[in-house]
Amino acid sequence: MRGQPPATVTELADRVGMSRPGTDVVVRGLVADGWVKVVEPDGSTVGRPARRYCFNAEAGHVLGVDVGVHKILVLLSDLEGHVVHSHRLPVEPSADPAARLDAVDTAITQCLKAAKMRPTQIWAVTVGVTGPVDSTGRTTLFTPLPGWAGVSPAEHLAARFTCPILVENDCKLAAVAERWQGAAQDADDIVYVLAGIRTGAGLIIDGTLRRGFGGAAGEIGALKAVRWDSAPEHIENCPGIPSSIHADDRAAWVFTEARAGNRDASTAIRRYVKDLAVGTAALVLTLDPQVVVLGGGFSRSADLILDPLARELGRLCLRVPEIRASSLGADSVALGALRVALDHLDSQLFTDGMPAPLTR
Amino acid sequence: MRGQPPATVTELADRVGMSRPGTDVVVRGLVADGWVKVVEPDGSTVGRPARRYCFNAEAGHVLGVDVGVHKILVLLSDLEGHVVHSHRLPVEPSADPAARLDAVDTAITQCLKAAKMRPTQIWAVTVGVTGPVDSTGRTTLFTPLPGWAGVSPAEHLAARFTCPILVENDCKLAAVAERWQGAAQDADDIVYVLAGIRTGAGLIIDGTLRRGFGGAAGEIGALKAVRWDSAPEHIENCPGIPSSIHADDRAAWVFTEARAGNRDASTAIRRYVKDLAVGTAALVLTLDPQVVVLGGGFSRSADLILDPLARELGRLCLRVPEIRASSLGADSVALGALRVALDHLDSQLFTDGMPAPLTR
Repeated sequence: MRGQPPATVTELADRVGMSRPGTDVVVRGLVADGWVKVVEPDGSTVGRPARRYCFNAEAGHVLGVDVGVHKILVLLSDLEGHVVHSHRLPVEPSADPAARLDAVDTAITQCLKAAKMRPTQIWAVTVGVTGPVDSTGRTTLFTPLPGWAGVSPAEHLAARFTCPILVENDCKLAAVAERWQGAAQDADDIVYVLAGIRTGAGLIIDGTLRRGFGGAAGEIGALKAVRWDSAPEHIENCPGIPSSIHADDRAAWVFTEARAGNRDASTAIRRYVKDLAVGTAALVLTLDPQVVVLGGGFSRSADLILDPLARELGRLCLRVPEIRASSLGADSVALGALRVALDHLDSQLFTDGMPAPLTR
Repeated sequence: MRGQPPATVTELADRVGMSRPGTDVVVRGLVADGWVKVVEPDGSTVGRPARRYCFNAEAGHVLGVDVGVHKILVLLSDLEGHVVHSHRLPVEPSADPAARLDAVDTAITQCLKAAKMRPTQIWAVTVGVTGPVDSTGRTTLFTPLPGWAGVSPAEHLAARFTCPILVENDCKLAAVAERWQGAAQDADDIVYVLAGIRTGAGLIIDGTLRRGFGGAAGEIGALKAVRWDSAPEHIENCPGIPSSIHADDRAAWVFTEARAGNRDASTAIRRYVKDLAVGTAALVLTLDPQVVVLGGGFSRSADLILDPLARELGRLCLRVPEIRASSLGADSVALGALRVALDHLDSQLFTDGMPAPLTR
């Protein structure tokens, strides 16, 4: 019934191939448990209309938390994945773990407060962080966040939530989001490339997010030969950027200038794309995906990147996949976090089972 | 019952959780269809021993064909994958498609003749070829075999076989073989690296061979930046190789000399491994596998390659997987071809179904 419009018992019986009386018994049980709610007739029909039922998406909620370099973003959704509240807080790139976790706590508090909910009403939380996430939920191998390598966001949040708390890499979550609601909803084999001040990747193969044996899949950027580590420097160090421009706005200045005909800016972008293409080609040649989705801050300037990137990949690869720009922007990590939390609930429900909403 | 020792009806009933009489009916049906055979008591037991049953592996057979640069290898196996006959023919690297297909035909004829079987008794054939295999079963994107890009091995063999004929890339088949019977039987996430005069890769993720959207997964070697294309030249062009050594034996000379203390040979191998490691690191960083299996001709000298390769990967990667040498040698492609043919039969049996052996 989830994801479907309200339906009568007769319609449900047809849909699942059970008898009408049998379906009626099951539906009444689901209503009693809180999984399904009754949709009362709106009175517009003549005669006595049949009662309709729909999935009770408000039975439970999940949180998706993006712990970024510059921001904390918390999304709260129902069991259908509809976002009912969000809260965003800026955070300094140089913030230490305590300050960053404080911001996470505050953003979650604000989000729950706005939704008038208690932590016990949250069924699952997924936290997105930068760097590969190991089996303990930490980013011990690598993280650009100061002092963050030893931090366990799951342990920190366990003081407040009794539900499952998952931790996942930001690029992997963004890839999940693009397949769920973004630019790659039709594809099962997806390479997501985060293009911005940092460059990263998330991989979906056969419809499933691939974490790798140790959680470090997609970390091609660590290989110097594919030139991702230095690629953004072409843009950051573009000649002519006025010293009055804030460090965070240098790239936007370069893209704007390139559109206005500034040769230095165009050259910087051309060199950036050439380097971005090498690492992207390594992913494409390894996996031969259907789609490459370009996300991250620079994807707002996809008009200046997509065509030259496709040309470079044509030169470097045996077969060039479709290349699309992200349609989700800066919310993609938190959205993917919601999806991973919901998927976790699904797998719990269909393996170990879980308590019904009204028996919790 | 497949892969299990002979069992009595009582044992089978226990195994599947059915009643003894019900199991008896099913087993008699399987015997009548030819899927199961009766194992007569050997008379060593006192009293009247219970009749035992086992899977009839000889009910059907499959062929695995390796169309290599230097050789054609045909393996014939029963439904358990036991090789009952094989036939190997040398072929010139320069052979044109007609000559190479002639050799394939001859090797298949010899193999069937030795087994006293007709083509109609073969249930599936898998052909391994070099280069990525597209959706038509051709290697249109790339092949090192002269004139082979437009050849369809499936169409060629369809003149002789009415069963399904599959075509697959050689490195992908070798990867399958290593997981089936070779060095990676315990792993689900495997990068297979073919190390020889050519360098290639096959990928198994979550226990499944990954072909890629267009069949070109694993073709990282096409990216110049990862240095696979030139890596073997360090060994081929090692200073001091006597002109009397045949081109195909130059690598063996270098490995032998390195073991004997020849500095030039050791240097050539060190440079080779440094280049091999870059492409391998690209695969490892992309997929984060549990195991890297080193196969191909050079894997016979794994004693000289594995340790320095692990050191280089330690330098280049975030997390270094286990590195193991292939245990299958030159038969791995044809063995993988058998496994793919058997898997195809399984998927047919469990989806569309297939005629019972005795009703064919």
